[in-house]
Parts: sequence; C-alpha cells; structure tokens
Amino acid sequence: MQSLTIGQYLLKRLYGLRVKHIFGIPGDYVLRFNKLIEDHPDIQFVNTTRENCAGYAANAYAQLRGLGVACITYGVGIEIVSAIAQAYIENLPMVVISGTIATTEYQKHQECHHLINKVVNEFGDGTQLEIFKNVTIDQGVLNSPKTAAETIDRVLHQCLEHKKPVYLELPRDLVDVEITQLDSHYFSHSKTDAETLGEGMQEIQKILSQSKSPILWIGHEIARYHLNHLLLQFAEKYSIPIVSSLLGKTTIDEHHPLFLGVYQGEMSNENTIAAIHQCDCLLIAGVILHDLDTGIFTTKLNQEHCILATEKELKIDHHSYDIPLIDFINQLDKLKLPGFSRSLPLNPKKNLPFKPDSNSKTTTKRLFECLQSFLTQEHIVVSDVGDALFGSTELVLFENSFLSNSYYASIGIGIPTAIGAQFAQPSKRVVALIGDGGFQMSATELSTAIRYNLDPIVIVLNNHGYGTERVLLEGTFNDLVNWNYTKLPQLLGGGIGIRVETEEALSDALDKAFSSRGTFFLIEVELDKMDFSPSLVRLGKSLGKIVKS
Amino acid sequence: MQSLTIGQYLLKRLYGLRVKHIFGIPGDYVLRFNKLIEDHPDIQFVNTTRENCAGYAANAYAQLRGLGVACITYGVGIEIVSAIAQAYIENLPMVVISGTIATTEYQKHQECHHLINKVVNEFGDGTQLEIFKNVTIDQGVLNSPKTAAETIDRVLHQCLEHKKPVYLELPRDLVDVEITQLDSHYFSHSKTDAETLGEGMQEIQKILSQSKSPILWIGHEIARYHLNHLLLQFAEKYSIPIVSSLLGKTTIDEHHPLFLGVYQGEMSNENTIAAIHQCDCLLIAGVILHDLDTGIFTTKLNQEHCILATEKELKIDHHSYDIPLIDFINQLDKLKLPGFSRSLPLNPKKNLPFKPDSNSKTTTKRLFECLQSFLTQEHIVVSDVGDALFGSTELVLFENSFLSNSYYASIGIGIPTAIGAQFAQPSKRVVALIGDGGFQMSATELSTAIRYNLDPIVIVLNNHGYGTERVLLEGTFNDLVNWNYTKLPQLLGGGIGIRVETEEALSDALDKAFSSRGTFFLIEVELDKMDFSPSLVRLGKSLGKIVKS
Repeated sequence: MQSLTIGQYLLKRLYGLRVKHIFGIPGDYVLRFNKLIEDHPDIQFVNTTRENCAGYAANAYAQLRGLGVACITYGVGIEIVSAIAQAYIENLPMVVISGTIATTEYQKHQECHHLINKVVNEFGDGTQLEIFKNVTIDQGVLNSPKTAAETIDRVLHQCLEHKKPVYLELPRDLVDVEITQLDSHYFSHSKTDAETLGEGMQEIQKILSQSKSPILWIGHEIARYHLNHLLLQFAEKYSIPIVSSLLGKTTIDEHHPLFLGVYQGEMSNENTIAAIHQCDCLLIAGVILHDLDTGIFTTKLNQEHCILATEKELKIDHHSYDIPLIDFINQLDKLKLPGFSRSLPLNPKKNLPFKPDSNSKTTTKRLFECLQSFLTQEHIVVSDVGDALFGSTELVLFENSFLSNSYYASIGIGIPTAIGAQFAQPSKRVVALIGDGGFQMSATELSTAIRYNLDPIVIVLNNHGYGTERVLLEGTFNDLVNWNYTKLPQLLGGGIGIRVETEEALSDALDKAFSSRGTFFLIEVELDKMDFSPSLVRLGKSLGKIVKS
Repeated sequence: MQSLTIGQYLLKRLYGLRVKHIFGIPGDYVLRFNKLIEDHPDIQFVNTTRENCAGYAANAYAQLRGLGVACITYGVGIEIVSAIAQAYIENLPMVVISGTIATTEYQKHQECHHLINKVVNEFGDGTQLEIFKNVTIDQGVLNSPKTAAETIDRVLHQCLEHKKPVYLELPRDLVDVEITQLDSHYFSHSKTDAETLGEGMQEIQKILSQSKSPILWIGHEIARYHLNHLLLQFAEKYSIPIVSSLLGKTTIDEHHPLFLGVYQGEMSNENTIAAIHQCDCLLIAGVILHDLDTGIFTTKLNQEHCILATEKELKIDHHSYDIPLIDFINQLDKLKLPGFSRSLPLNPKKNLPFKPDSNSKTTTKRLFECLQSFLTQEHIVVSDVGDALFGSTELVLFENSFLSNSYYASIGIGIPTAIGAQFAQPSKRVVALIGDGGFQMSATELSTAIRYNLDPIVIVLNNHGYGTERVLLEGTFNDLVNWNYTKLPQLLGGGIGIRVETEEALSDALDKAFSSRGTFFLIEVELDKMDFSPSLVRLGKSLGKIVKS
C-alpha cells in the first residue's frame, strides 16, 4: 500500500464513498487541510458564507448521495451544531471535520484563540469533542499517525451503519504526517440472530396472510438504507397500498398507483384518512412516530394489527424482536401471501394544467397548485419549515426528489439545503420553498449559488412574519421587517428577482424560471399574513391548544 | 411577598439586574415566555434574524450593562452555542433562556419536533443541557415551582460572580405556574482568607517599594468586575504607566496621560515595546495571556518581578496566592509607595485632523487615521475579527467604548454586537468595523436596526476575501464573491449605503454619517486584497510560521 498522510487517507476514504464536495469555511486551524482539499484532483472545497449553512448543505448532500461532509475550524465553527442535530435525529450520514490547534502548540500554550478549554482531556481542549458527542454517533481525534487510519475507518463505518453524523478532529500539525499503521478494517455488520429472524417473520407471515386490507406506511429510514426498491417490489407483488410520512416523502415515486399520499393523522387530507380507517393492518416501516408526522399524535394505530419496523427493531402489536429494518425488509420477498383486492379510490396524480385567474391575489393553496403544474422528473423540491413545508405535503413528486427537515424543524435551512442538493445532483433543477422568516436567516447564502454557478429557483412565501406561530400564539414577536426581497440579486451581483401578487403573475414568473437555466431565480410571492395552507390550519388546531394550555 | 409565576419571577430578577432588553427568536416551545416579555412594562423582546446573532447582541449588552439575556426555543436554537462560547472565554455575564417541551407532554411523548433525545435524564431530553454545560458556568432546569426561585437565584449569582454565561431551561407548561417556595437566597461572596491576603499584599508592598519603573498591564477582567476606577486611582496616586490588552482595550480612557497603548508583545507599536523593555516590574491585572494578546507569545515577561492578578489568583514570579482579582484590587489603596518618576515619552493622543489626499486610494492604515479624527466621547467602536480588529488596536478611545472578541475571534459578530451595544447605551452612536468575510456572515442582521430605529455606522473593509488568512496560507478558499455591499439598504428597506475608493470620498462619507443620526450608514471601503494594517503584517510573521510548519 502506498504511503499516505493522515489528510490524504481521510480524503481517499471520503472519495471512495462518493464524496466530491466538502462544504465549509476556512480558518487558521484548518487551513492546511483546506489546502489539501484544494489540491485534490477530484474533491472540491465549497465555501459557504457561514458554518451552519455548510452543515445544512452537507446534510442535503448526504440525503441525495449517501454521505455529506462539512469542514470547520475549531471553536468558532460550532454554530454548525444545529445542522448536526438535524442530521442526528433525521438519520443523515454526514461527517464534520474540524481542524484544531497543533498537538505541539498545545503542549506549550493552552490559552490560544478559538479554544474553549472548559473540558481538558488527554487530547488537550476536549470541549468541542464533548459538545459534538451529544449530536453524533461516533467521534475521533486524529492525534496519532499510528491510530488515525483505524479511527477514520471506524468513525466512517459507524456513520454509514447508523446513518447518523460523526465528528473528526484533526490537529493542524498532523495533516501532512504519514500514517504509520494501515492494518485498519471496517467492522462487520452484525446480522440478526437466525432464530429471532425466523420467529419474527413467521408471525409477520401469519398476520399478513389473515389480513384483508393492509397498508404500508413508509418513512425516511427506508430511503436512508436504500431499501426503496425492495419495499416497492413487495408492495407491487401483493398490491398493498402505500402512504408515507412527511419526513419520508418521495421515498417512492408519488405517481405510483399504489401511493395514497402523505399520512399525518388528522393533519392529512380526507382520502388518506379514509384509507387508513378502512385498513385492518398497518405495516409501518422506517417511520419515527414523532409529533409532526403523527399530526400531533392523532394517527390511528388501533387497527387489528400494527407492525412497526425501525432501524433498531421490529415491533408487532405489544411485543418486539431484535430485527433491524434492513434485515426485515430483506426478508419480505420470502413471504407467501395472497394478493389483496383493493377497492380504494386512487388519486388522479396527474399534473393538471393550472389556469390562473388573472385578477386573483395569490394564496398559499393556489401557489402549490400552480407549482405542481411545472414539476417534472428533473426537479428536486426543498421545503423550509413553516407553511412552505405544510403546503408541500400534497405536492405529487418523483422518487427521492424532496428535502425538508420536518422532524428537527429548524427554519432557515432552505437556501443551504438547495445549494447542497445541486452539488449532489448537478443535472437536476432545485426548487426551494421558503417563508420570509426562514429566508431572512440565510438569504445571503445565495452568494454561494453565484460563486459556483448554481441556479435554484427560490420561492419566498412572504406572509409577513412567522406564520406558523401566528396560528399558535400571536404577538408582535411574530412580525418581521418586510424586506424588498427581490433586490437580493442586486446586492449579491447575480440572479433574477421577480415579485408577484396575482395568480397570473405567479404563473408567468414560474414559467420564466422553469424555462431558463444558468442563474438563480428569486420569486417573492405576496401573501396575506393570515393566509394558511389547509394543512397548517389543521396543525394549528392541535398544537395551539398545547402551546396555550 | 406577592405571589409570582416562574416566568414573572425570572423577569423580575433580570429587571432588577438592569436588563431592559432580551434578544431572541420566537418558537413554539418558548412562545408563552415571549408573550410574557411582550406584556412586561419595562422589558422589551428584541427580535433578531437568527439565534447566534441574538447571542452576540446579548454579549455586547452584557459588556456595557453588566448582564445580557438571549432567549431561544429548544433544539433549533442551539446555533447560539458559538456566542455562548465567546461569553465563556471572554468573561461576559449573559443568560441563555431556552423554552422547552411541557413536562406533561414529555411524559406522554418523547418523539417531538426540535427534541434531540441523545441524552435523556430526570428532566426528559437532557441533550441541550449537556451541550450548554460545556460553555456555561452554571445551569438550571426550571421544572418545579418549588425549586424554581432558588435555581434562578443560584444561576444568576454564579453568572455575576464569575462573569460567565449561564443556562436556564423553562418548560412551556410552567411559565405561568406560581412559585410555591420563595425562601431562596443569594450565596455570599467567599472572601479571601485574611492571612493569605495579608501575606500576599505584604509581598506586593515590598516588591513595588523597591521597583523603580513598574508598569501596569491591564485587561478585560478589570472592566468585567467594574474595578476600572479603583485601579486608575492607584495608578494616578503613584504615577504608574498603564498598557492594556486588546481584549481589555478601553478599560481606562486611552487619552489618559498614563496610558501608553495596547501591548501585544512584538505585535505592538515601537513606543509601547520600548516602554515595556525599560520597566523593571510588570503588574498584570485581569489579562488572559492568550496567543493574540501576547503577540503569539512574544511578550516580555522576564522583568525583575512579574505580578499576575487574575479572577482566580495572585501570582508573583513563580508562586501564587488564593487571592482573587477583586480582593487584590480592593487592597491596593492600602499600599504605601513612593511616587515613581517617569521619563517615558507620552503619545500625543490627540485627534489630529485628517487631511485626505484627494487622489489617493484608500488603505487600511489611512482608514483608521481618518476614522480617528471623527471619534469622540459619544461613540462606541465595535471591531469584527480580522484586520478590522488588528487595525483598531491603535485607535485612541474613551473608557468602555470598544467591543471586540479578540480572544474567541469569531468573524461575523460585528453587526449583532453593534445592535446589542446600541440597545445597551441608546445615547451613544455605534461605529462598527467589519471585513467583507465577517460582513457576509451576518449583514442582514441590519434588518434589526431598521426594525428598532437603530443607527450604527457600519464600515465594511472590503479587501476581497479572508485577508488575515491570506497572510497565513493562500488559496482560492480565501476568496469571496464581491457583493454590491451598498445595495443592502435597498434590500432591507432602510439605511444609507456609500461606496468609497479614495481618501477624500472616505472622509466625506464619514463626515456625512457622523453628522446625521436616525438611520444606519453602510460605508464600503474598497481596499487592495493585499493591503494589511501594520499590526496584521506583524501577526502574519509569527502565526504564518505555525500554520505552515
């Protein structure tokens, strides 16, 4: 094996895992690693405007390509912790690499800029490591050429095995030091015990054989473990209808005749609710039953049987087996079931042409209907949190074409997520939907679109404040300064801004944006401050009570 | 005692500590507390555009008024951790209040939006608490009306005693619950043991009596503990010259005849270095001897005697006493010393009129000379990290009129710091100096200036990239998109933008900005990308070696 430095070895491993872009901000503790990336023939360092945005871009990259990487300098880069928390709870495999002070420097001086020194451990300032332990599945400090390769391999393996973020810390004096031991190995995937698997699947066989109208409710974990196609084969073989969680939206192509919509309890549309109420067995695969994905815990889970397969275990009614999702899904083709007759009404799921009413003011509901008419297989939709997300629920989209953070629910992720998505899939056109509150958090990250010639279509739903919160508890703290959003291209020196107030103007603006590539479009859609999507109105009813009670 | 709810009690305590503004972003877990602030007659909730900016604004407020408060919602608010880290290492007393899920909700459902649940403790999701433990001196979860008052008092006391940030978590169902026990008490300040104090001060008396040319090197801790005037009285009584650290810049009025400048080892100007080399006893008070404040450890500390008084202890040469700074400074007036004759040259320290050369392009050096001619007692100067900071070193400023983060050294703090400073001292005019890199991180926080009618003068040093890093290690990662910075007012809907390239235009722009109040000014100063202040050139020589070696 050729001799490699720690930095080279790390980049080699990342490139082997399809990483072609690393997002970040340079800083003196990480400059030498930045330089190493810059000199790498196949990996590009992508400058964002701040660290948290680098994190969100890496998360999008992880979702679309299987692994994302962000690179920060020590201490001041920790605002990225919010993006890592999203990756942690939403199962996004991403790696944070932080440069740090040289081991030799720290031996001489502990009081150096950027260092926190609240926790001092064998590595020196252990504070950042301690912080990131709370939002990552594994961590490593690359402070020795003897153990660096093994640490890198272990940490990357944990990242990919659990689909969770990991943290690596690299002292600046070791970037270019040669690795002295290369006998590292990937840990093997621990398979389920055969008897447990047998018993569990036998029970599944029995329940599904007796069921007359099962429904599959699938979530993001199916996509994270790339089990989409296996699961769809199973559903197709027996004609089992499918609903998805919002976090798992587009795990399968939503035009598929078996797909009945996004299910979120009482927040769902009537057809989806009706289907769930008719079914006698709910097979839930890869869904986290959290508040937003259960319509604030209003999902109907009292069918005759309820099966819940997650990353960690298989739960049937009130007992569970140590069978992880990946093993469970792989066993489905061994089942022998009758076909299920379906009498469920199918949604039309066709892109109906949108007929704008020339004098009508835009509403959230009509915005999504208009947008739907433009969407094709070449688009990726990104929805920031708020009504941009709730309104997106009923868009009918293609497989793996939707990004949001509907569990972590941090506003402001829209622009950096769009940036990361286009780097991950350069041939696709990214359409980002963002409220004015989320947009004000990271609007200027569109600078990165200019820098790297990206051309997202950004739709700002300007409802003049934190609209979702108005539904919950009103106050002046929900108001925002009303920017001239479409002047942003002039500030940044690129892109095209269009402001629309009517349906006709909206339709024209989208037509213009969708028919031309090469520059970003920023379309500000003027909305009434009390205009909400039907989905948000339903959310407000449930959550408003809790906030106020 | 009147009955109070937990929320009311917390606000009452904060108001009693001079807090009139709380900075933050609303969110559903904190909405009820937001509402309580909105309804408070004397405390205003200040919306920033994102959480980290709320943190930096609170830090500035803490520096100028003695306590700052930021208020976030759970999980997604954790990007504020970077601002808290600054407060931790730079001794800024600030309080982070985070709303969280209702205790009753969590008992029913653990999987709710924004929650991280990596660490689950007696309070429920303990993850955020664990993260913030790494950057705060004390923490409390206000989950019981029996202990809430005592917890609030203890945590605030620790904050003010140690001048460090603290963290309070408030479940949303307890905001309006009445406190049931009010027998809380502030812990008493632990005074130094009398014999230790006696012995230590006796040694100080002996050393200073024998010294012929002592110099006081004072730092930010003097200002944090409000010891400025006591220390100055001592210096004046015996004519002891004073230098300050950069982090402690303006701890005393820099026009004072005893003040000899900012001392940072070999990064300092020649006069200051010469003075230090002539002195036989260095009395260092409240300085952290970190890399940037020691000119990358090039300070001369081998005088005949070296006394180092810090928050925690008094160190003389190679031994130390358990005498904290506050007790040490309070003993200084008991010393009986001869007056010291001074033959040191005094800096002129007058605002020399700036004569612009009409055809000369602006340089960093001349920018600071020009700015100096406009500064009076009514101004507060904020310097973001980079050459905006290094260039500011030699500005001659009034007491408590300079804010930076020259130890934590996070770029991007300029705008939110300026916002916080003006809320803290509304009668003052804030002048913020920011590089283009730092400006791109938080430029749009000027939206908050428009919202609340603030009028900072923001000077963008546009040297086309991360200038400080060019000095250390060059690469394309140090380049930035060159925004049309002065278009920002058009985007935000307020403020005045002026771009200058020559000395004359710069002088005219500053004249305009300084002579009119009521709106913010954004002055973009065009600089060559390889133009650096003399101070940065000296830094580059020391730090560049370390980065590359």
